[in-house]
Amino acid sequence: MDCIFCAIEKGEMPAYKLYEDDDFFVILDKFPHNRGESLVITKQHYDNVFNMPPQLVGAAFSVGQKVAATLKGKLGAEGVNLLQNNGRAAGQMINHFHLHVIPRYNGDDMKIGGSTIKQADEEFVKICDILKLE
Amino acid sequence: MDCIFCAIEKGEMPAYKLYEDDDFFVILDKFPHNRGESLVITKQHYDNVFNMPPQLVGAAFSVGQKVAATLKGKLGAEGVNLLQNNGRAAGQMINHFHLHVIPRYNGDDMKIGGSTIKQADEEFVKICDILKLE
Repeated sequence: MDCIFCAIEKGEMPAYKLYEDDDFFVILDKFPHNRGESLVITKQHYDNVFNMPPQLVGAAFSVGQKVAATLKGKLGAEGVNLLQNNGRAAGQMINHFHLHVIPRYNGDDMKIGGSTIKQADEEFVKICDILKLE
Repeated sequence: MDCIFCAIEKGEMPAYKLYEDDDFFVILDKFPHNRGESLVITKQHYDNVFNMPPQLVGAAFSVGQKVAATLKGKLGAEGVNLLQNNGRAAGQMINHFHLHVIPRYNGDDMKIGGSTIKQADEEFVKICDILKLE
């Protein structure tokens, strides 16, 4: 098992731990975009969001909300991103579910975005039909 | 009330709706980065994550997980980002809680990142002490 987050969970690797409960631990990201960027990590190994029980997904983001409030309250963050990447195509670098909680400041260096696409109404209708959830 | 998402919720503005339950509705983003980018939106108005009941935050992301699975299954997305921005500094453009569910493809135009900062161990220790959650 070469998963770095599993190794941290087992105490085999050091980390700056902010929080722990039965299901999650929260650590400082070793490669933060801004001071205090944190990761909410499942104790159990899940590759990504697709294979997780829905309740556990929800619980992860409730923990993320607490971290976000702390970043705002204790570090004076002007904004916070909750970002959870699934798959290499989405920028996921470690294949163990983790949620980035990123403190943001006006004019900081973090970039989230890209060009948007133009779509005809008929295309929206078509995609909407394809994606409708039961 | 000039909130665009409240107007959609009330049926005063059109939208491409994928899903609806007691607490949320899901629509196609009118300005998608990739085909099928969707938004999970609270029916009740909350400016952002900071003022929401934790359970509702969790529920929003459980809905997001369903949307992510649908984007993967029905559109063949190679990856998915769950992204929720809080505050103008974090890129939030509409001050009503919404969660972006972004389908991703290898080599697409979406950028999430920026330069990371170097921090001495002592600085990590200091920030960890400041941020420790109760």
